[in-house]
Parts: sequence; structure tokens; C-alpha cells
Amino acid sequence: MLYELLKSKNAQFYIQHSGDNNFYYATKFRIPNSAFYFVGIDGTDLLVVPEMEKNRASRESKVKEIASLTDLGYHERLKELKDSKRALAQTLIELLKTHKAKKILIPPNFPSFLALEFLKYFEVEVVENPFLKMRAVKSNDEIEKIRDTSVAIIESFKLALELLKKVRDCDMLRNEIETFLFSRGYLAQDTIVSSGKLSADPHFIGHGEIKEHVIIDIFPKSRKHHYYSDFTRTVILDDCPEIEEMLDTVTEAQQKAISMIREGITAKEVHYTVCDVLEERGYHTLRKKYREGFIHSTGHGVGLDIHEEPRIYENEDVLRAGMVFTVEPGLYYRKWGGVRVEDVVVVRKHGCEVLTEFPKKIDLRRV
Amino acid sequence: MLYELLKSKNAQFYIQHSGDNNFYYATKFRIPNSAFYFVGIDGTDLLVVPEMEKNRASRESKVKEIASLTDLGYHERLKELKDSKRALAQTLIELLKTHKAKKILIPPNFPSFLALEFLKYFEVEVVENPFLKMRAVKSNDEIEKIRDTSVAIIESFKLALELLKKVRDCDMLRNEIETFLFSRGYLAQDTIVSSGKLSADPHFIGHGEIKEHVIIDIFPKSRKHHYYSDFTRTVILDDCPEIEEMLDTVTEAQQKAISMIREGITAKEVHYTVCDVLEERGYHTLRKKYREGFIHSTGHGVGLDIHEEPRIYENEDVLRAGMVFTVEPGLYYRKWGGVRVEDVVVVRKHGCEVLTEFPKKIDLRRV
Repeated sequence: MLYELLKSKNAQFYIQHSGDNNFYYATKFRIPNSAFYFVGIDGTDLLVVPEMEKNRASRESKVKEIASLTDLGYHERLKELKDSKRALAQTLIELLKTHKAKKILIPPNFPSFLALEFLKYFEVEVVENPFLKMRAVKSNDEIEKIRDTSVAIIESFKLALELLKKVRDCDMLRNEIETFLFSRGYLAQDTIVSSGKLSADPHFIGHGEIKEHVIIDIFPKSRKHHYYSDFTRTVILDDCPEIEEMLDTVTEAQQKAISMIREGITAKEVHYTVCDVLEERGYHTLRKKYREGFIHSTGHGVGLDIHEEPRIYENEDVLRAGMVFTVEPGLYYRKWGGVRVEDVVVVRKHGCEVLTEFPKKIDLRRV
Repeated sequence: MLYELLKSKNAQFYIQHSGDNNFYYATKFRIPNSAFYFVGIDGTDLLVVPEMEKNRASRESKVKEIASLTDLGYHERLKELKDSKRALAQTLIELLKTHKAKKILIPPNFPSFLALEFLKYFEVEVVENPFLKMRAVKSNDEIEKIRDTSVAIIESFKLALELLKKVRDCDMLRNEIETFLFSRGYLAQDTIVSSGKLSADPHFIGHGEIKEHVIIDIFPKSRKHHYYSDFTRTVILDDCPEIEEMLDTVTEAQQKAISMIREGITAKEVHYTVCDVLEERGYHTLRKKYREGFIHSTGHGVGLDIHEEPRIYENEDVLRAGMVFTVEPGLYYRKWGGVRVEDVVVVRKHGCEVLTEFPKKIDLRRV
């Protein structure tokens, strides 16, 4: 795919810098320092790393060829220029010249200090990061990692349900969930434990007393393999007919959406199915320009980032087998608060698999 | 200071984008999305944020003026251009034009997609991030935050010493320390619990059995206020005269360095004092080009990043009151393993204050 991109742009190189998950995805190499992955139309598949990381890069990365900055003459240039950034830029420029580059492609967030130096020697074009689209379709190995994180979430949610019998404070419950996950090797931050009318703001993480109902939205990543998963349930704790009806409706919308997901349908079809169910039951949607009701998208891809491709919204993206995303309809009314039900699914050829299987309606009123 | 920078460069604007701690330092505003802080020579002090973050920005940020992208016509441009990145670039370009900008300054990691668009309308120069130098000298409020994290570290280290009576596995001990800190509101990752001869690699986080001695290096940040601290002790668990002598020597070097730290001396003087003590006792140093012995710098600034200004090495930086950094001499020999003692200090006018006060020599042989 990178070859086609280079060809269509009449460019000789794409350069991916370290510092985001696209670099890790492309190279399978994690590094806190600066490193650069060069893909050339001449077949170049080269990772450039600091000298001290060269051995580890050879062991861990999936890139064909590794060169250290020292190999490429960085230290001589540093002595001469006495400026680490200029020395780095010159080192990469010489490398590109050796490969007869005339035009190079860079992703939008590529560091400006390099891009502006490159411009003195080459044509430079910013392109959408090509790895973003590739990342949307997961390998089996990636799916197993998301499954692993999903299992940990369900364990932590079961703990939360146990604790809800005595803990009725949002911050305390959040801390218990996150600490449990941390001790098992998962990092959850800003876990939503949101109750009462303030839960009508879907971004509010929740503070204070847990009242008639509580939204618990847990989205950790593994500290080992770094893949996220994402899961939400709304727990009923006391009578509130409006909230209960909202929850039943959201559950119905979610189940209808999940039942239709398979390879070949579009994101928009899924999103509109959710909107249709909610509107039929008399609720408001953003689709109809309302600011209460269902005011966000149906879902988002989950992987190395918590929000990635595909987006399940009004877009025409066609779902492909191996895509992993959330299905998370919600309803939010300032008068009553919010409800949401969220699962992560994998698209299959003739359907989809739910990775976060757990009962949708949780009623702790009689506990 | 930004005014002087703009003047000296004959530029009208410096633009800081969100995504690193310099943005937070400059604005006191945390945001997961794109946001931009504009400082103009005409007195402009403006934060540009997405519409949904405007109210929070008004409450939380210390910037004088807040504008949303919507206020600046982003959505009209998006409709016209159908490209969110180009619409964003045009919106910022129009803003700069309104302020009669001709030359703008950007930090090295500024996103290329914007820098290359800016170039079509303005002169653009990449400068060292001006906030890095400012961040080296901490306010009292910042020092209290680093003190808070330091207190948590000492608590977690006391727990580690208790656990060492029965837990003799590096990974288990690391997990106990990190989970304890997490439950108290601090995030520690890659905590070093390193034992045996492999501890001769100062970057090895440690795995396997804990033997005659163990290096424990804990460097969490607060999940609330986001400031780091950093602390290392080497614990003696069984007889090993070489390790013990190394530890005594490192402790002496550290104490001599700490006793001389005050406003006005240079980083190099501190680093060379450490080297002098170690060399006098017959150990090797990188200063003398050895690859065993004391093979790293004496310390680094600590704040919103775990490694920041000032560097305590062979550089001539003059220490100023309010600077906060580590003093962490170590000795590393493949034959015996490594030892290190590390504290965080605040430079004062006539001395320095240690924020991580704890006995240097910890001998658990008789426990």
C-alpha cells in the first residue's frame, strides 16, 4: 500500500517518525527517543535509531534494515555543527540524497524542524498517515490482544458490581476499578463512574455520591501489549422509570445494530439503525439536530489508540472483516441524566463477534 | 522572555501547539485535542480551542483571551474545503493575517502540516522551545507538587523494604510498588528493581530473582497535578564487599555534591565533584573515557517531565534558586553489578533542600 501511495504521488520516500502509535504499528519497535522509519520506492525498508538502541531494534523491530545515527555520520556532523537538531536533519538529508530522493512524503504531525530543513533539498508533501487506514483492520494477533484487555475489563466490572453493594462514591469506585486493573497489568485512566443528573454530560467522569443509577465506562490498555478495549454498562440502583426506559431502548438499539454488523455494510447503516430505533421510541438524536438525546456517534475503532479508525457515524466507510470497534448508543437528558451501553465487536464475514460479552441490564435494586 | 525572543528574531508571533508539557506549562490547560497558544509582539495572548472546550478553557487556563475555532470561522472553511486540516490551517492563517504577522516562530516539534501551510503566507522560523528554559526554575507551587510526589515515593519505598523480607522477585516487587502508588494517585511505570550482575546496566528495569543487593529506582508522576519526582536506593541483602564499598563511595560522592549545591555554581562543578570522589577511590568514570564505573550524568531536572532542564553534566549551566533536579551518582561493573543513590534537590540561595530525605545505606542482612 505504501508503494502505491509513493507511486501515485510520484514520490521516492515516506518517512514515519517515532512518537505515535503509527510508528510502533509500522515497525513493532517502541522507543522513547527520536527514530525514523524510511520506506522507499526503491525497496528501502530502513529504521534509523540512536546507536544505543541498535541491538534492541535488530531484535524487536520487523523492519528489514537497521542503521544507527552513528553509522550514518551523525556524530561527525554534530562536532562540526554543534547543534543536535541540525546534525540530525543533515544526517537524514544525506541518507535521502544517497537514495536519489527528489520528493518525500511525511505525515501531518511530522516535526517541523526536519520538514523545513528537508524543503531546502527536496519537494515535501504532507499526506494523511497511511498507517491509520491499515490499523483499522486487525490481525488475529491484534484481536487476541484486544480480547485479553476485554477479559480484564469484565473482571474489573464484576468487582465494581460487588463493591456497589457498599461503596456509593464515584471517585472511590473509580479508584478501586483502576487499581484492580493496574495490579493485573492494565492502565485505566479517567474511567467514567457517573451518576445522577450530571451523567447527562457524556464526557463527565463523575464525582460525588452514586444515586439511582450509575454509568460505568472502563477503557484500559494493557501495559504489556498496549492494546485497548472499551466497555460501558449502566447500573440501576433505585427506581427511576425514565432512566429504565432509556436503558431498555438503548439496549434494543445496540442489539439491533450488533445483529446487522458484518463485512460489506457501511458505518452509516449501523449508525442510522441506532438512530431509527431511538427516534421510533420518541427520543431525540443529533441526526435531527437535537442537543439532547443521542448526541454522539455510534462507535469508534479500538486498538493501539482508544479512538481510531473506523468511525461509526454518518460516514460511508465500508466495514471489513477484522475491524474492531465499539457499539455504544446512549441517551442523555439534563432532566434525568444519561445512560449508555457499550461493547467492542470484531467484524466477521457473516456477522460480528462481541469481545465484551456481559448482560446488558444490571439491576441492583433488590440487592 | 517571549517578547525578547520575538524582538530578537524580528518576529510577530510565537505559536505553541497542544500535545506536550510546554503547552500545559504555558497555558495551565490540559486538552486531548488540538489547541494553539498565540503570543504576539502586539500583546496578543490568545488560546484557540475547539468550541466544546471553550468554557473549560475560560475557567482553567491562565491565558488572557480565549477564542474557539468556531468563533474564528473554522466551520465555514470546513464546509468549503471539506478537509479538516486545511480548514484549521486557513483559520490560523487568517488570524495571523489579522494581526499583521510577517514572521512567526514555532517550536521544533510543531506539526508539519501547519508549518508548510504557514510558509505560503509568512516567514517561519523554528526556535528552541522557549518554555523549556523557563520550566527549569520552579515556582513554590511547583516545588510543593514535586514534594508531594516525593512523599508518596518514600511511602512506597518503605513498603518495598517491608516486602523485601519475603518477596525476592524483581517483577513482583515492582508490581507491588507501582500498584501501591497507583492506588494513592501516582503513576509509576518501568520502576527499576534490578539485582545481581545485570544491574550493571543502568537502563535494565530488572527481572528474576533478587540476590545480594537490589537497586530500586522509583519515578512516578502525580495523576492529579502531573509533577514527577525521582528516587533511588541500593539495598544490601547479603555479603558482597565490592558492592558495599561501591555503595559507600557513591554515597560519599553524592553527599559531597549535595553539600556544594547552591545558587551560582555550575552544573559542571557538581558533576566534576562527583567524578573526583569516585576517581580518588580508584573507580572509573566516563569523564576519563571508561565504559564501566560512573557512566552517566550526575542528574537531570524533574518537573512535568521526568527528564528536563537543567542537565547536571559537563555543561556550564549556572544553577539558580528554584531549580529542581536529581543528584544520582552510580557505579556499574559487569563483574559485580551496579549501585546508585539518587535524591531530588531544590537549589536555594545558600544551599539546597533535599525533597526525598531517607537514609542512604540500607542494610537488610540482619533482618
